[in-house]
Amino acid sequence: MFLQPGAVDLVTNTDKQCEALILETIQTNFPDHTFIGEETSASQGFSGELTAQPTWMVDPVDGTTNFVHRFPFSCVSIGLAIDRKVVVGVVYNPILKEMFYAKRGSGAYLNGHKIHCSETKELGHALIASELGTRRDDKFLDAAFTRMRLLAKHSRSLRACGSCALNLCSVAMGRLDAYYEIGLGGVWDVAAASLILEEAGGKVLDPAGGEFELMSRRVLGTNSSLATAVSSILSAGPWAPGEPLPPTSST
Amino acid sequence: MFLQPGAVDLVTNTDKQCEALILETIQTNFPDHTFIGEETSASQGFSGELTAQPTWMVDPVDGTTNFVHRFPFSCVSIGLAIDRKVVVGVVYNPILKEMFYAKRGSGAYLNGHKIHCSETKELGHALIASELGTRRDDKFLDAAFTRMRLLAKHSRSLRACGSCALNLCSVAMGRLDAYYEIGLGGVWDVAAASLILEEAGGKVLDPAGGEFELMSRRVLGTNSSLATAVSSILSAGPWAPGEPLPPTSST
Repeated sequence: MFLQPGAVDLVTNTDKQCEALILETIQTNFPDHTFIGEETSASQGFSGELTAQPTWMVDPVDGTTNFVHRFPFSCVSIGLAIDRKVVVGVVYNPILKEMFYAKRGSGAYLNGHKIHCSETKELGHALIASELGTRRDDKFLDAAFTRMRLLAKHSRSLRACGSCALNLCSVAMGRLDAYYEIGLGGVWDVAAASLILEEAGGKVLDPAGGEFELMSRRVLGTNSSLATAVSSILSAGPWAPGEPLPPTSST
Repeated sequence: MFLQPGAVDLVTNTDKQCEALILETIQTNFPDHTFIGEETSASQGFSGELTAQPTWMVDPVDGTTNFVHRFPFSCVSIGLAIDRKVVVGVVYNPILKEMFYAKRGSGAYLNGHKIHCSETKELGHALIASELGTRRDDKFLDAAFTRMRLLAKHSRSLRACGSCALNLCSVAMGRLDAYYEIGLGGVWDVAAASLILEEAGGKVLDPAGGEFELMSRRVLGTNSSLATAVSSILSAGPWAPGEPLPPTSST
């Protein structure tokens, strides 16, 4: 296991080995498909552009810090996009043995059972998750904690369990009511779970309220009722220099 | 299930039924022992004094918000103190099927396997948890988020998963390196897990660095190396009016 002293953004050999195995399997079965993996993209200077080609977006270990610390929220996330739209998504947490999956238009499932978002209608009853990600500079921390404080004031409580994909899936099956993150790792964190959440009846949008953009490194996922209440708080909050901006379509 | 609209501090019928069952079992077997339960104490005006008598301290559902939302960190916590010292502690999460337990002097166990704290020595490598509890007034939120921000700046990352007893047990088995909370619900949240953490080789102290006091509604639990690093940050942080103060012995 490879640990940079003091590093916040951990990469383990497990990430690399899992991604190589997934890449090999996909290339064998779909040799003309495109592949965007967290590890290979980082090391091979991925351009950041999603084309219309069938594209697999893979995070071999989402929640790597949890994985290193044996905290039980880690997962593998695999999504397939065609024409820039995710059509299949699978998120599997092998520790809790939770397999979330969805095919566009066919609903979302957890271990074979159809799942739905919560029916929580008031922000004051909502359980909301967010994550700090890997930045620790003062301007980012000021912005991130101000946003969390604003939401804590108006919601039931906050959770931070360390996996973007599992947070979105938790909204999909109703144990969270909303989740947002600004500055998440990349499209591999959100591709599969964003479809799972949509197919479970939830909303996936930009944290400032506009349309969700897969490559934007920003996401807000809510049940069907809370999108406006949460995004209106987030869009009024402060932003830090260098944070990914809302997609052009939503400004 | 009983939900006050907008309430943050939830009490379910499950809490009451579980506590009644545990109380009955203890009274049948140990009729002369004292009982402090979260629900009966709240409704019967518990004096807040722990005597030298054998005393059972019971939280029938720790992480009640999680329980209501089906978030998988809920547990029952049962501790026995004699001469004001916890001598037996059991914390059980029936969702993840994790049974933590300890007898003073005999080590700590998870599902039959001896557990130990992490060996993380540097704060920059530490995964730290805290919780907001139930207060949502501005002064409390300012103080609580300032403390979290200070720790986020210097540690690997923060977690907030909603159960005091399970956070302490997570430190005991090494998937967290430290956990603190100021203004937790009561002795029933910490009694059992504080012994489990001590028996796993960890440290249980006041967040400001002094001696831990069972009734103080404040706790810091760390592995054997990080107590001073975390408490020096927490003791320098701001405090909100009405937050429980450090025990007299540690001021």
